Amino acid sequence: MKKNNAITPRETDMAKWYSEICLKAELMSYSQVKGFIIYRPYGYAIWEQIQKYLDKKFKETGHENVYMPLLIPESLLKKEQEHVEGFAPECAVVTRGGGKELSQPLYIRPTSETLFCDHFKDILSSYRDLPIKYNQWCSVVRWEKTTRPFLRGSEFLWQEGHTLHRTADEAKEETLRMLKIYNKLGQDILAIPFVMGLKTEKEKFAGAVETYTVEALMPDGQALQSGTSHYFGQDFAKHYDISYLDSDNTLKTPHQTSWGVSTRLIGSIIMEHGDDNGLVLPPFVAPTQVVLIPIRAADNPEIMKKLNEIKADLEAKDIRVKLDDSEKTPGWKYAEYEMKGVPLRIDLGPKDIEKNHVMTVRRFDGKRDFWSLDENIAERVESELKEINKGMYNKALKYLLEHTTEVHTFEELKDVIENGKGYAKMMWCGDRGCEDEIKNKLNATARCIPFDQEPFDDKCPICGKKAKYVVLFARAY
Amino acid sequence: MKKNNAITPRETDMAKWYSEICLKAELMSYSQVKGFIIYRPYGYAIWEQIQKYLDKKFKETGHENVYMPLLIPESLLKKEQEHVEGFAPECAVVTRGGGKELSQPLYIRPTSETLFCDHFKDILSSYRDLPIKYNQWCSVVRWEKTTRPFLRGSEFLWQEGHTLHRTADEAKEETLRMLKIYNKLGQDILAIPFVMGLKTEKEKFAGAVETYTVEALMPDGQALQSGTSHYFGQDFAKHYDISYLDSDNTLKTPHQTSWGVSTRLIGSIIMEHGDDNGLVLPPFVAPTQVVLIPIRAADNPEIMKKLNEIKADLEAKDIRVKLDDSEKTPGWKYAEYEMKGVPLRIDLGPKDIEKNHVMTVRRFDGKRDFWSLDENIAERVESELKEINKGMYNKALKYLLEHTTEVHTFEELKDVIENGKGYAKMMWCGDRGCEDEIKNKLNATARCIPFDQEPFDDKCPICGKKAKYVVLFARAY
Repeated sequence: MKKNNAITPRETDMAKWYSEICLKAELMSYSQVKGFIIYRPYGYAIWEQIQKYLDKKFKETGHENVYMPLLIPESLLKKEQEHVEGFAPECAVVTRGGGKELSQPLYIRPTSETLFCDHFKDILSSYRDLPIKYNQWCSVVRWEKTTRPFLRGSEFLWQEGHTLHRTADEAKEETLRMLKIYNKLGQDILAIPFVMGLKTEKEKFAGAVETYTVEALMPDGQALQSGTSHYFGQDFAKHYDISYLDSDNTLKTPHQTSWGVSTRLIGSIIMEHGDDNGLVLPPFVAPTQVVLIPIRAADNPEIMKKLNEIKADLEAKDIRVKLDDSEKTPGWKYAEYEMKGVPLRIDLGPKDIEKNHVMTVRRFDGKRDFWSLDENIAERVESELKEINKGMYNKALKYLLEHTTEVHTFEELKDVIENGKGYAKMMWCGDRGCEDEIKNKLNATARCIPFDQEPFDDKCPICGKKAKYVVLFARAY
Repeated sequence: MKKNNAITPRETDMAKWYSEICLKAELMSYSQVKGFIIYRPYGYAIWEQIQKYLDKKFKETGHENVYMPLLIPESLLKKEQEHVEGFAPECAVVTRGGGKELSQPLYIRPTSETLFCDHFKDILSSYRDLPIKYNQWCSVVRWEKTTRPFLRGSEFLWQEGHTLHRTADEAKEETLRMLKIYNKLGQDILAIPFVMGLKTEKEKFAGAVETYTVEALMPDGQALQSGTSHYFGQDFAKHYDISYLDSDNTLKTPHQTSWGVSTRLIGSIIMEHGDDNGLVLPPFVAPTQVVLIPIRAADNPEIMKKLNEIKADLEAKDIRVKLDDSEKTPGWKYAEYEMKGVPLRIDLGPKDIEKNHVMTVRRFDGKRDFWSLDENIAERVESELKEINKGMYNKALKYLLEHTTEVHTFEELKDVIENGKGYAKMMWCGDRGCEDEIKNKLNATARCIPFDQEPFDDKCPICGKKAKYVVLFARAY
């Protein structure tokens, strides 16, 4: 019996395909409140792998974890005008507590800049206290009208870094350091090639001086902002009265950064790698990296004996392995672990024992192989998982390169955007008016001013004025 | 210059002593909202150690982490009457979202039984799905009137386990398994001897059939409930329509458990071990386990060289070490690391180099020692940390045993309770009336019916009726 895991093909309806994978791969369930999802074990375990990777990197680069309150008093939120205008309209507000109306409404944190600033004001006094480099793992709430699991939710899980520095240069260095950690996360464990770049003034974070981003390109040609890192300058610090006594005995204002990624990355993974058989997980975020399937195990006791040995060897190397010796048919199991995107499957049956090998199947490209049982299977798996991560990354990189098109005219821009061809790489004058026009006519936005700024034209195709920047335009999630 | 870390002596005012340690050891800060604290790096790092220990144990015993929504619809909360009566009055309620009044109020989770139940209803169908063993790490909100950092807050961090089982026996086994993990946490890393036992009907969790507890005894003779594990029977499952098709093809109701510990454990640690010089941390939760202090390092280049070697050796063993080579005086540093409760201090100065040794000072008992530099210092530290944990545990155990008094009359009970002598161990008839009387007259509660049920009398000293249980009474935090 093959498990009925049929899902809508991606080409037919990508949104439906996506939702079906979320449910059938058991990543999440819907709760009774719109936009609030339940992170099921298989989905949450992916987030745990991302957390583990990042938390280690954060600590290695001198950051400390803290936990700020869930609720923000209205008065505190309102101290930075641009920030409150950006966030207040999408907040959930607590007006009752302990059976009574509250004298002041409390906002569930949509992000914690205001709380960190208020705390920094209290703890910073001398230049010797700097830098202060904090991170927080938590959930935040933003009341979204249109919600999709992982991609856009009224509640999501994330980390938010908040740091203070003595100089602008040091803060900018921190901003880029953290962006590069996100980029490396993509390479090392998500198998996603991000484009790194600067957000335009129009697209930057409410209250930031500069916002940097890592952008992923999805198979339908739409971009997905996957992480951001902000240089705040001194504006927040000034509004929240954060200052320190410098070595020259004068009061100074520190320079600030903030940076974050969220469970949206799970959405990136699903869309970037998934196919019509379900989820395809990169090996270093996969809750189960290898599944072992016995075939007609009753025919030969060697099968289970050998598989248990392989399992123990893999576990000794901290490889996440599952041996499925349940009564379900191999066909059912194949469909199940394909849906769940397990990177590597190893089958062992009576014929394999005769031939002294195992059969291996890679999820992402379906490649089959036979490995001799005389080999060190665990070592082979270890290097195979690295190969798979590299293979998945290169496949995505190939797609990204093939879907980045230099455009010289509005017509070319329109063709790229309207036909789902990915990024339109365009020379831009730097005026917001041209961005607005592209947004209005094509519903596309400037995803970023990429670090790679090799000019290929001298004028902006929208207004005809002198071009200043290479910009990537696309529609976005 | 000695750092001015003077705090109120514990004997003078324990509440003040406690608050001052919380602030001066930089464990927390107050936020603008009463009862919502900021977990500073040093406090949060203690919680991270507890999380790491428990998360490993939970996973080893087959539990999976999930994340449930922050908000509970009023209708869902109201399905279990006893539960809603217990929690609804202390909830924070969201009435506005995205700029609009909500059609139904949403409660910030005070605990997540209702959410887990609603989810279990959706995912449980066959006996093959059982057991389901989930855990969640999150924060919860309960609007408390009187709040104290870590001990009682309107928001606190915790873990809540929720499991479903086929039989009552299996569920009860789970309930006790998790309680024993909490007890072992106390032994292994908190250095706190808990008393394990069953809560009385009066004291059990709203909606539970049985509540088990681990109770710690504080130096002022008051008990501190430090973790609970509940057997829910089938009541929640029935109210939330959770059922499964059993192997005999009939619909059955599963048996349920839940269990949790919170950041309250940080409060236990502070009070259990702290002294008039500040915090005293058990070595396996301490963010910094060893601090290295150079004395007059400028006099001899060997000092810093040797300390850096020791540091590297300790780090190679994953021991959390800090080498403080700042310009502050040794006296300032001693006071600072005493306040922060660092378990072991190692000093090295010119005279020590001459004598080819280091000086060590243990925080908890002040014991000084000299270790030859020819020894393997890192190995010695490793065993010393174990010794310190054991020493702290035994000290607390001695206190516990000396402050547990068998009482045979109301007068004896009164003496123990009113004079802060700790637990009154009393034979009890089992009637709630007698508990109520003790509560009314002495403001003490039945902390638990301990597992150790050796009777030492045959009648209840309150009503004179036949005694059924050995019970520990005390005032409690």
